[in-house]
Amino acid sequence: MKIVQKSSLLRNDLSAFRRKGGLVGFVPTMGALHEGHLSLVRRAKVENDRVVVSIFVNPLQFGPKEDLKKYPRDLKKDAKLLSGLCDFLFIPQKDRMYPADFCSNVEVKALSDIHCGLSRKGHFAGVATIVAKLFNIVSPDNAYFGQKDAQQAVIIKKMVDDLNFPIKVHVLPTVRESDGLAMSSRNIYLSDKERREAVVLYQALKSAERMVAGKERDTEKIRMVLVDFIKRVPSARIDYVDVVDAKSLLPVKTINGTALLLLAVYIGKTRLIDNTILKIRQSA
Amino acid sequence: MKIVQKSSLLRNDLSAFRRKGGLVGFVPTMGALHEGHLSLVRRAKVENDRVVVSIFVNPLQFGPKEDLKKYPRDLKKDAKLLSGLCDFLFIPQKDRMYPADFCSNVEVKALSDIHCGLSRKGHFAGVATIVAKLFNIVSPDNAYFGQKDAQQAVIIKKMVDDLNFPIKVHVLPTVRESDGLAMSSRNIYLSDKERREAVVLYQALKSAERMVAGKERDTEKIRMVLVDFIKRVPSARIDYVDVVDAKSLLPVKTINGTALLLLAVYIGKTRLIDNTILKIRQSA
Repeated sequence: MKIVQKSSLLRNDLSAFRRKGGLVGFVPTMGALHEGHLSLVRRAKVENDRVVVSIFVNPLQFGPKEDLKKYPRDLKKDAKLLSGLCDFLFIPQKDRMYPADFCSNVEVKALSDIHCGLSRKGHFAGVATIVAKLFNIVSPDNAYFGQKDAQQAVIIKKMVDDLNFPIKVHVLPTVRESDGLAMSSRNIYLSDKERREAVVLYQALKSAERMVAGKERDTEKIRMVLVDFIKRVPSARIDYVDVVDAKSLLPVKTINGTALLLLAVYIGKTRLIDNTILKIRQSA
Repeated sequence: MKIVQKSSLLRNDLSAFRRKGGLVGFVPTMGALHEGHLSLVRRAKVENDRVVVSIFVNPLQFGPKEDLKKYPRDLKKDAKLLSGLCDFLFIPQKDRMYPADFCSNVEVKALSDIHCGLSRKGHFAGVATIVAKLFNIVSPDNAYFGQKDAQQAVIIKKMVDDLNFPIKVHVLPTVRESDGLAMSSRNIYLSDKERREAVVLYQALKSAERMVAGKERDTEKIRMVLVDFIKRVPSARIDYVDVVDAKSLLPVKTINGTALLLLAVYIGKTRLIDNTILKIRQSA
């Protein structure tokens, strides 16, 4: 694995290789890697000839009151985890990514000011902008994202379609701890008690799945049950519980076929998200 | 010259070729081609192995009261002019470029809401968005723009820098009619009388250059002289006359080294723009 800081050097290495017809896979991350990230890298390695992983804690996607400063960083550990799994670890420098006169912005408008975008203003424009930049630096054939950040995945896919990036976006399943909690770099913020209570998000998702299996199709009823369920946990404070169309992210009243259940819940001061696809079985 | 409507077909043709190490040049246009466009295509041909010209009247960059509908279109004539000069004429279809659920936006914020952006709200976001799309479809090594659209050229350069497009942007000199009027697809809107009077833009630029050669460095004085000069023309109505820094596009009070003089003037109902670099000579 080669560690590269300069985009020009990464481009050089990749373009020589790409001319031979090799496929390039790309996994953009903010570091603090866990099994969720590694599952993306492993898949990328299977489907491509060269794999680039980037680690960049992108200031543009953090709000002024968010956790940019305390966001976990451990490059040494991350590099060790990636060693042997990918070919290039790209660690761009903040000043080069965002020079003082930086003023461009990429936004997927209809999808960005709802759900997580409501409580995290400007977050998804920050995500779209850094991903567009990284896509232009790496020019991958395939890019890999986790389903855990469901709204992000939908937005990136839409950006790629709308702006004609010649890139295939793959969204891989959420990786979970043994009790069901979705893996997240932010889980380390949780106290022991909060960590135990955080499983409520997963339990809420499972409960919704059971309701749908039991032929419930009224999303408002599902929502109310989940809200009640989550509220019983002392450390939990709901940001939102929404059942939406998986592509437009617009709320749906009745589940026909499939819908996406999105959750954002504060556990103590830590905001966690999770989601699941609610599916009406053919036989139902 | 191959005429292509589908971006996937263009990409296929180009990628096979690019793998052999060939350089691709790109000239995006809205058609209604004139010598200004053709000078870009000729330069592209000299500097690249394959040249793509696109013709697409981009609805996103027209305001609701602007001339989208009547903007001149003559594909047959354009194709004839390009034949032999370029390798691919790319004519994307509006519905494929902007499907009903299109919602992405690229914006170069600090540079877009001033000068032409003031009277043409959203214009430069429309330009940046379509150029980003076309860049992703064509993936050129070199792209060519005219200095006549000075603010556009600065914005595209900034977008390419900020978003790390691996593309070199070339800005070529304005091509003029024999009396000095900058060539523009919109010149055909002018009546005979207006056409004669439209030369006032060029004369104003020349007058400013003479003032600077005569050691005038106070941009407000230059501005006032030009405003007076243009106002004497019956069909002329000034949109703006600004002397700005050539990179930041911010107004400058005193000319040190070089500055960019930007003009936008309505001649009758037709809005024309022109510009020149004001340069203090070393000896001055």
